[in-house]
Amino acid sequence: MSDINRLKNRTRADYRYILEYRTRWSDNDMYDHMNNSIYNFLYDSVINTYLIEQCGLHPPSSPQYGMVVHSHNDYFASISFPACAELALRVNRIGNSSVVYEIALFEKGHESVRSVGEFIQVFVDRDTGRPSPKGMNEKLRRGLENILVDRQPSKL
Amino acid sequence: MSDINRLKNRTRADYRYILEYRTRWSDNDMYDHMNNSIYNFLYDSVINTYLIEQCGLHPPSSPQYGMVVHSHNDYFASISFPACAELALRVNRIGNSSVVYEIALFEKGHESVRSVGEFIQVFVDRDTGRPSPKGMNEKLRRGLENILVDRQPSKL
Amino acid sequence: MSDINRLKNRTRADYRYILEYRTRWSDNDMYDHMNNSIYNFLYDSVINTYLIEQCGLHPPSSPQYGMVVHSHNDYFASISFPACAELALRVNRIGNSSVVYEIALFEKGHESVRSVGEFIQVFVDRDTGRPSPKGMNEKLRRGLENILVDRQPSKL
Amino acid sequence: MSDINRLKNRTRADYRYILEYRTRWSDNDMYDHMNNSIYNFLYDSVINTYLIEQCGLHPPSSPQYGMVVHSHNDYFASISFPACAELALRVNRIGNSSVVYEIALFEKGHESVRSVGEFIQVFVDRDTGRPSPKGMNEKLRRGLENILVDRQPSKL
Repeated sequence: MSDINRLKNRTRADYRYILEYRTRWSDNDMYDHMNNSIYNFLYDSVINTYLIEQCGLHPPSSPQYGMVVHSHNDYFASISFPACAELALRVNRIGNSSVVYEIALFEKGHESVRSVGEFIQVFVDRDTGRPSPKGMNEKLRRGLENILVDRQPSKL
Repeated sequence: MSDINRLKNRTRADYRYILEYRTRWSDNDMYDHMNNSIYNFLYDSVINTYLIEQCGLHPPSSPQYGMVVHSHNDYFASISFPACAELALRVNRIGNSSVVYEIALFEKGHESVRSVGEFIQVFVDRDTGRPSPKGMNEKLRRGLENILVDRQPSKL
Repeated sequence: MSDINRLKNRTRADYRYILEYRTRWSDNDMYDHMNNSIYNFLYDSVINTYLIEQCGLHPPSSPQYGMVVHSHNDYFASISFPACAELALRVNRIGNSSVVYEIALFEKGHESVRSVGEFIQVFVDRDTGRPSPKGMNEKLRRGLENILVDRQPSKL
Repeated sequence: MSDINRLKNRTRADYRYILEYRTRWSDNDMYDHMNNSIYNFLYDSVINTYLIEQCGLHPPSSPQYGMVVHSHNDYFASISFPACAELALRVNRIGNSSVVYEIALFEKGHESVRSVGEFIQVFVDRDTGRPSPKGMNEKLRRGLENILVDRQPSKL
């Protein structure tokens, strides 16, 4: 199964943390679909909610915060206002200062996934804007490990 | 009681239709509050959801649609991501082609209202961009009347 | 001349500071007009650019910052992506801690004004979230006075 | 030179169409940087402006329109409100119904590129939501070919 087919077959059970977001009128573009840029807004929202609620992040004051350095997304089917979206999150890899999130967007009441993407964040020190030599702090790391999906090395 | 104090004391019971919207990371500005412009996005969203679900509006094809000609808003207290907002809607007045909506924003789990505003929409014909001499269609009118709050003329 | 007619006749010469903003694809709603909520984004943008460039505001660190407590807007004609908007700013009133801005939106290459609104901001201390008894600082006040339009009391 | 280093060294001269976009107050997140999702808004805006102005696209009525099926982006350095962004566009590949755009974001007055990404759009028929067997129409194709950057097959 190719990578893209694997992603197209993602289900809610492949993720560890799911939040519901109601779409907004302004999310739709002139073609009556949610605009592609809005997916990133929602990906960012579920990631940051998780960081705040489960990993001790306090955006106005935390000594470390995450900067997105790479993002990619595959769009399989559209969603339109006023539908409710479900944003599903997992972590695919944790480095010293970096983390790879995988996020999927589902439509409430529908099985098939609408889009799947990854964001790579690097945690930097607020004072320097650079990663710390000691990497991300322990509370962050433990929170992220809780939604890490252990991917067995493929034997095929 | 002055008008502004009356608005400050609004409760959910003063409204006829309430939807929950989860805030998004990008809603916050640099002061860690939801940006004032986002209130209008949410007001617009609850209005349009009501029009689509209860008044027969189909934005890509309906022969009539609403244009906002006036809006105003009073901000009493702030709300911040990742809180959930509750958007509460009522209609204050219905004219031949126009409607005055009142919308309030509450924070889930909190009593006091965060903001109250009004939007005035004029329904125009898609072909001409002008109101019809016959005014808004019957399905729209009936739907709006269902959330019209009858304001007795004050006797005081 | 009624208030609303006065506003409809505003020209660029009625303002003291003008910036050009290119519209974005996502600004348009399904009716091929810039969504009403986007006007507030642009009003906010020209105000904050003026505060940063002319009044010494530094959002991440300034001891005082402005909170919008009231906004209202009249929409006279629409604008659509990919047009360029011109945002025109003046100050209508300065209080001890508060300021009333008037903002107008024009379309590049067209005479007539598209919308006119007012924002009321209260400057609060970052530490307390409350206005200072001494009011806004001097640099702010002087910057705002530079675009204050002196409205003579009408003698008519 | 690795792919990522090649992208980091992109200059304005590598692109065929450049538009200036003033950043907006709401673009910044709590870390005083333009939020990563806004890059996609701007990429989308320069693409659609080009399609409208140079390729005959009329979003409310064109029989074919583009759907984004994949996007990816690398973020090299940040930009903050109230800076002006310059969005630079080229086409990297044209298929029967699909096109690969490359977009870069520069900051006005600065040499080095802030981010580089690609969007893949598939042109679909408005009636069916599916690509036409005949592919994209001729006016679109000619417009896109005008900014196609011919990439010689590497001989190394």
